[in-house]
Amino acid sequence: MLTLYDYLPSQNGWKVRQLLAHIGLPYRSEFVAIFDGEGQSAEYRRINPTGTVPAIRLDDGRTLAESNAILAFLAEGTPYLPGDAFGRAKVLQWLSFEQERVESTIGALRHWRLTGKLARRPPELVAMKHDAALRALAILDAEFATRAFAAGDAYTIADIALFAYAAHAEQAGCALQPFAHFRGWLARVRAQPGHLATTHAYAIDPHSTRELPRAPLPAEVLAHEVDIAVAGAG
Amino acid sequence: MLTLYDYLPSQNGWKVRQLLAHIGLPYRSEFVAIFDGEGQSAEYRRINPTGTVPAIRLDDGRTLAESNAILAFLAEGTPYLPGDAFGRAKVLQWLSFEQERVESTIGALRHWRLTGKLARRPPELVAMKHDAALRALAILDAEFATRAFAAGDAYTIADIALFAYAAHAEQAGCALQPFAHFRGWLARVRAQPGHLATTHAYAIDPHSTRELPRAPLPAEVLAHEVDIAVAGAG
Repeated sequence: MLTLYDYLPSQNGWKVRQLLAHIGLPYRSEFVAIFDGEGQSAEYRRINPTGTVPAIRLDDGRTLAESNAILAFLAEGTPYLPGDAFGRAKVLQWLSFEQERVESTIGALRHWRLTGKLARRPPELVAMKHDAALRALAILDAEFATRAFAAGDAYTIADIALFAYAAHAEQAGCALQPFAHFRGWLARVRAQPGHLATTHAYAIDPHSTRELPRAPLPAEVLAHEVDIAVAGAG
Repeated sequence: MLTLYDYLPSQNGWKVRQLLAHIGLPYRSEFVAIFDGEGQSAEYRRINPTGTVPAIRLDDGRTLAESNAILAFLAEGTPYLPGDAFGRAKVLQWLSFEQERVESTIGALRHWRLTGKLARRPPELVAMKHDAALRALAILDAEFATRAFAAGDAYTIADIALFAYAAHAEQAGCALQPFAHFRGWLARVRAQPGHLATTHAYAIDPHSTRELPRAPLPAEVLAHEVDIAVAGAG
């Protein structure tokens, strides 16, 4: 049986849970205590070198990480990923957009707001991400004026990926009122049979207010860093 | 004939040029004057809603954007993308890694350094990106200790994508000396038949020192922004 390495408040985890619910594939969950540093254990980094969730393990022991790659793998041969090369590529275009312009902006701002970290971030960085989040929503709004779903007329993993964080943009401090086409798309996604409306608050994990633990950089790397800093100052 | 919308100093453009060279597909280039605002024209945003390069147009007029999606599309059925679902998914895992942890860190720092923008960026943001760049290199170094190429034993589009910015990490201020396995991989990529060693300096575009022009946000969005700001302060 498929193993899903998960952390309930992660909307990247939600993406995979949603697709697994749609396709009815049985799986078992292993929860990774991300903010307790479990993601940085040597054991988990053999599963996912970045130490993040989600990741999956197949029956034969092979592992796969990065939510959008997992979506593409699990959706192969299902209605959630087109069978033709161009159709698949259009899905990948919107998965890239989601990663660069939705998750890293709306996802980050939402996380910082819900876990009390916003005040610890450089205000210029918060302002940059907020501006980029609004631009992403404006782009999506214009796109959804032309078609029903992200990659065409059918609901695909591109919609699942985009929905994961974009649907919660108000929790990131972005008003959705101006984006009527975008809100229409949210309603269409929510109306999908088997839509997984449950999200899990960061508040269920009292450790989520901590900064994400990071593996120490090797001494050799840090030694060279000094050289770079000196060179930069020279 | 395939049209590639390109901007020569873009290493995201290089990715596509490199793959097209490998597969010997004829194409014509259209250059987009990104820093003159050409990417934000209504005409170009119909090709790529984000206003960036690269994008491609097929003979029948269909268009595709996002460098990694273009790579996956063009590599379909070639030795640069595995034919089996798991092999393809492993490539996608490293394309996601590249987008999140290489392009947005090494790519951004390199661009800021080469165009004189570094001093205009919040120092905390520069430090965060520099730390994240070193972590990405450390992860890649550990991975290349275990296998020859990003997604397995064969050179694929995952290597093309990673090479685009990671190969120029020293221009981003990251010493490569500590990363012996990573440097071994760089040498293996450079040794590929048809490797495209040419990169184009930002200096060929005197406008590249400007901030990237942005489409104005709709008035309706900005009107609601005020509400949010007031609500946030309340």
